[in-house]
Amino acid sequence: MLKVGVVGAGNMGEDHLRRLAAGIAGAEVVAVSDVNVELAKRVADGVGAARVHAEGHDLVGDGEVQAVLVASPASTHEAFTLACIAAGKPVLCEKPLAPTTDACLRVVEAEAARSERLVQVGFMRRYDHGYQAMQQVLAAGSIGAPLLVHCAHRNPTAGAGVTSDMLVTESVVHEIDVTRWLLGQEIVAASVLRPRRSSLGEAGLQDPQLVLLETEAGVLVDVEVFVRCQYGYDIRCEVVGESGTVSLAEPEGVHGRQQGRRSSQVPVDWRDRFARAYHTELQAWVDGVRGGAVGDPSAWDGYVTTAVAEGCLEALAEQRRVVVDLPERPGLYAR
Amino acid sequence: MLKVGVVGAGNMGEDHLRRLAAGIAGAEVVAVSDVNVELAKRVADGVGAARVHAEGHDLVGDGEVQAVLVASPASTHEAFTLACIAAGKPVLCEKPLAPTTDACLRVVEAEAARSERLVQVGFMRRYDHGYQAMQQVLAAGSIGAPLLVHCAHRNPTAGAGVTSDMLVTESVVHEIDVTRWLLGQEIVAASVLRPRRSSLGEAGLQDPQLVLLETEAGVLVDVEVFVRCQYGYDIRCEVVGESGTVSLAEPEGVHGRQQGRRSSQVPVDWRDRFARAYHTELQAWVDGVRGGAVGDPSAWDGYVTTAVAEGCLEALAEQRRVVVDLPERPGLYAR
Amino acid sequence: MLKVGVVGAGNMGEDHLRRLAAGIAGAEVVAVSDVNVELAKRVADGVGAARVHAEGHDLVGDGEVQAVLVASPASTHEAFTLACIAAGKPVLCEKPLAPTTDACLRVVEAEAARSERLVQVGFMRRYDHGYQAMQQVLAAGSIGAPLLVHCAHRNPTAGAGVTSDMLVTESVVHEIDVTRWLLGQEIVAASVLRPRRSSLGEAGLQDPQLVLLETEAGVLVDVEVFVRCQYGYDIRCEVVGESGTVSLAEPEGVHGRQQGRRSSQVPVDWRDRFARAYHTELQAWVDGVRGGAVGDPSAWDGYVTTAVAEGCLEALAEQRRVVVDLPERPGLYAR
Amino acid sequence: MLKVGVVGAGNMGEDHLRRLAAGIAGAEVVAVSDVNVELAKRVADGVGAARVHAEGHDLVGDGEVQAVLVASPASTHEAFTLACIAAGKPVLCEKPLAPTTDACLRVVEAEAARSERLVQVGFMRRYDHGYQAMQQVLAAGSIGAPLLVHCAHRNPTAGAGVTSDMLVTESVVHEIDVTRWLLGQEIVAASVLRPRRSSLGEAGLQDPQLVLLETEAGVLVDVEVFVRCQYGYDIRCEVVGESGTVSLAEPEGVHGRQQGRRSSQVPVDWRDRFARAYHTELQAWVDGVRGGAVGDPSAWDGYVTTAVAEGCLEALAEQRRVVVDLPERPGLYAR
Repeated sequence: MLKVGVVGAGNMGEDHLRRLAAGIAGAEVVAVSDVNVELAKRVADGVGAARVHAEGHDLVGDGEVQAVLVASPASTHEAFTLACIAAGKPVLCEKPLAPTTDACLRVVEAEAARSERLVQVGFMRRYDHGYQAMQQVLAAGSIGAPLLVHCAHRNPTAGAGVTSDMLVTESVVHEIDVTRWLLGQEIVAASVLRPRRSSLGEAGLQDPQLVLLETEAGVLVDVEVFVRCQYGYDIRCEVVGESGTVSLAEPEGVHGRQQGRRSSQVPVDWRDRFARAYHTELQAWVDGVRGGAVGDPSAWDGYVTTAVAEGCLEALAEQRRVVVDLPERPGLYAR
Repeated sequence: MLKVGVVGAGNMGEDHLRRLAAGIAGAEVVAVSDVNVELAKRVADGVGAARVHAEGHDLVGDGEVQAVLVASPASTHEAFTLACIAAGKPVLCEKPLAPTTDACLRVVEAEAARSERLVQVGFMRRYDHGYQAMQQVLAAGSIGAPLLVHCAHRNPTAGAGVTSDMLVTESVVHEIDVTRWLLGQEIVAASVLRPRRSSLGEAGLQDPQLVLLETEAGVLVDVEVFVRCQYGYDIRCEVVGESGTVSLAEPEGVHGRQQGRRSSQVPVDWRDRFARAYHTELQAWVDGVRGGAVGDPSAWDGYVTTAVAEGCLEALAEQRRVVVDLPERPGLYAR
Repeated sequence: MLKVGVVGAGNMGEDHLRRLAAGIAGAEVVAVSDVNVELAKRVADGVGAARVHAEGHDLVGDGEVQAVLVASPASTHEAFTLACIAAGKPVLCEKPLAPTTDACLRVVEAEAARSERLVQVGFMRRYDHGYQAMQQVLAAGSIGAPLLVHCAHRNPTAGAGVTSDMLVTESVVHEIDVTRWLLGQEIVAASVLRPRRSSLGEAGLQDPQLVLLETEAGVLVDVEVFVRCQYGYDIRCEVVGESGTVSLAEPEGVHGRQQGRRSSQVPVDWRDRFARAYHTELQAWVDGVRGGAVGDPSAWDGYVTTAVAEGCLEALAEQRRVVVDLPERPGLYAR
Repeated sequence: MLKVGVVGAGNMGEDHLRRLAAGIAGAEVVAVSDVNVELAKRVADGVGAARVHAEGHDLVGDGEVQAVLVASPASTHEAFTLACIAAGKPVLCEKPLAPTTDACLRVVEAEAARSERLVQVGFMRRYDHGYQAMQQVLAAGSIGAPLLVHCAHRNPTAGAGVTSDMLVTESVVHEIDVTRWLLGQEIVAASVLRPRRSSLGEAGLQDPQLVLLETEAGVLVDVEVFVRCQYGYDIRCEVVGESGTVSLAEPEGVHGRQQGRRSSQVPVDWRDRFARAYHTELQAWVDGVRGGAVGDPSAWDGYVTTAVAEGCLEALAEQRRVVVDLPERPGLYAR
């Protein structure tokens, strides 16, 4: 059994804790930390974890903890991940790896210096059934070279504090990571267009946005991001190749026929839509750590996603195409 | 221009008149008859037909009328169709050809005696885009020999006077005709099962029913007929072959996403669902008559459908499997 | 019966002639012209038209011709349409109204000067069942204000002479017309992005392209145009509103299940996909002319579409956002 | 951790062992038995189970084993399940509970005598995402009282030894269990119709069959079972209620568009289609046992399914409707 410590007992942390405790084989949660110690205690009790820390660094240093899941606020990811690397402990860091490219780069450099993969970043879509099937079609080459990718990322509603930048940093980062993975290519430029704004919800927010990403081979990726679409959580992706296309199917359970309409349900939120992907991601991480091979997305992937997102923010603010410059990929992360 | 007379200006007649007047090339309506002369006049005016008859036989005998469309009540179909045959005028007789096998047989015999095809019966599904595509798949042999057919025939609501027998005589007759045509086989036996009855609407009606038809080659056809399904007019058909299946797709125009659901509209009634099929049927009839070749379904098809429907009624009443005996197919109707 | 003359007996002309002769009520073809007189004669014979002209202007001037369908090469549209206006004869001009905005504007001015609508332009999508259902949803306001439109326009293969500009002038013009109509808004700016090119077919062609159109209210329309997508003719359109979306459903006839896959057919080409829309368009034109009311799209619509297409060509060539300036809409074309 | 022993290391046993070892939280496999001891050893090694028995009864009696999963041949299920009951150990018995109603009844009586639920039967569909969503719709009452259920159960190919009876005992048993559960009603009569046989594969097999089941409330369930449909593993279910219907959606991951067709994959076999359901079933069993509450389907459910299946076999052999008589439901299994 892999003894896991979880840093951060908020929403995302609690979700992961529940999964680790009840649905993941080969792991047990032994420690929980949160700046809110009462919360940490309550959550730890719920999953039978004996050890509670107020300070995440103490959890990382706890000798009973063999691997760490970081689900604390994004601003703290760098420090905890660096501590795990220093301690030689595998870490699954929730997305983003860190909010700035500089911070991400420090993690990449620390891990590269150790010449050992310890960090996996929590972009769970790579573990989604549908995206995996798309990846297999692309890898098999049956639709020819990819030319375009069309994506939509829609949330029903957004919290009060949402900003225009957060459409990129909270939502589009998933499309950045998953299209890099699907295509096996880096993104080299970004633009962000500003369509008519929805009048529903608070004013001043640029919602929706149309993000345009260009890859090194010239593939053009368009991402509609719309965080207050009202009707549900809706994720779509189609890759257009030279001789065919492949796209995510709707995640349907049942069809109903009532009152003049055939219908099926749209997921309520991302937890509902990607429940199975989160499960598969966590199990794969536990299996990987126990087998001595930390999986992807890597710290490098986390760094690049933040770098591209920064390019998008600049493009959004300045309303121009921004070139994304990346340093050379360290050998540790060779494809 | 083919000069058409229409017998019967009720609902069905008026629909056909509107189509003939406004959407069918190569035909003009020159005469209308109805026992309700005022109605006939009003309708004739609407389509610019100069000649009005109180009596359908006068219309059939009218020298200006080159071809007749019979849309009067079913009990009168035999007499008008026989009159058309006697007059040597092509006739499109709305379904059923006649309510009894004896009456149908008289029409068949009259036409066969003349050795000339004059009668087409108004089962319009053979002219539906979807059924035609199914027929092509079957004819191409790509799913192997058919073994089973699954059908559903659902109406949202039924009028006050509906009887259990009418589920067969008004609705299932369409499935009888279209599966004979799809399979190119005769039906040799029928059973009717009585599922739990819907409690909505008036009591005493056996609604829904499950009709089971067996063809000469042993293909088993099940037809759910449900005339008060509430939610819409819904027609489904799947043919299961030895190596694959083919089925009608949903007749969708647009998809909507609202309030947590993806949905599309179910047609309101048969006119809506089969509007295009009626149009194609009428145009084909006009083209056929002008080209000297009356099309299918023939009087023989109309006769067989009524014979199978009578078998179903007997099966429904006596709750047993009823064998359908058919006389030899006259040479005029050779496949 | 409306006596129609058809200018141009090539592919498009012949399609229209066949429809007019065989499937459209209330019209008859009385004259055909083509610079290839032998072709014109052969085609006229096929549809029973007695009068053949080598010169389209003679057909327009022919006293037997009450209304004209122009299906000759695009470069001749202006002259024939102006002749029809001068002769006071209704004209259905195939798309485009004319290849340049100047030419289109001359038609608009001639018609406006007469203060009478005579010209309908052949953008047939407005008569497609699916687009009409979308338009009804939008008009009903049930998805709120439109914010984004996503379109794809894919052809399986393109002829040898196709140029990068023709992706706009032959294909995207349909999306320009239909989104203006769906949204009830003018397009004010255009950009064209150049994704990775398909390596299939001849080199040097920018195929696919991603065209971005902005409306006066800020709605952003993206159109993927890809004329050698190999797999079929595929048209998609989704309008994203503040509280829901509406999109074209797939034009499916039947579903098959064979060899490990569920599948349905993609139309082979635009004639197949829009056969019913062409029919509805022609019937509506004939009905409109006979009823004294020429329908849409108008000469103004034809002018604006060409103006926006010119903006796209400039945007494609210069790789920048181009503002589309339109003169004031003449009162004859008031919304 | 629940210490589980697995009886039977064949196909089904090995599948379960792999899941238990790698994907189920809170359980560890401690013992494996198989009459083929070499196989048992190899499989036990693979999952890290230290204890191997040649004889299943020794495994049941093994003091280290807290709960037993029986995946041995059906003829041995009764004996091992009875042994588990005698030992007071929870047991998940693969379907069927036993091949005869008499044998099943002995298990029911033994468990009822103990007044304690220990047995869960391995009908995994109740744990499938889609069936669970259907069950929720039915429970919510939103489609009104169920009247009809339409099912199809198709396998691509069948092994050499398959018999006509096995279509019922291996396949239809799943529909028997799941429709009883969906409807919350017992089945009281069965008929089996014999459609035209597929000519593919060995002769003499009645394949497909149409099984008709009637519930105590009169709901009519039709099940097409077709074990050599060639094209894939395809499970369908639609419940028709008084005011609407609910049906399983297709289990699609991605859509492709290639070579003139839109298509998606049909699962290859039941393991593929129900992988997630098996996982959920096992996790629920482990959670239930650890929480002191053994779940459904119960021994009673297993008994009834075998009783109904026996009725079907009699109906198939004698070609008549067979009434299924059930004893009173013991209080231990009260709904």
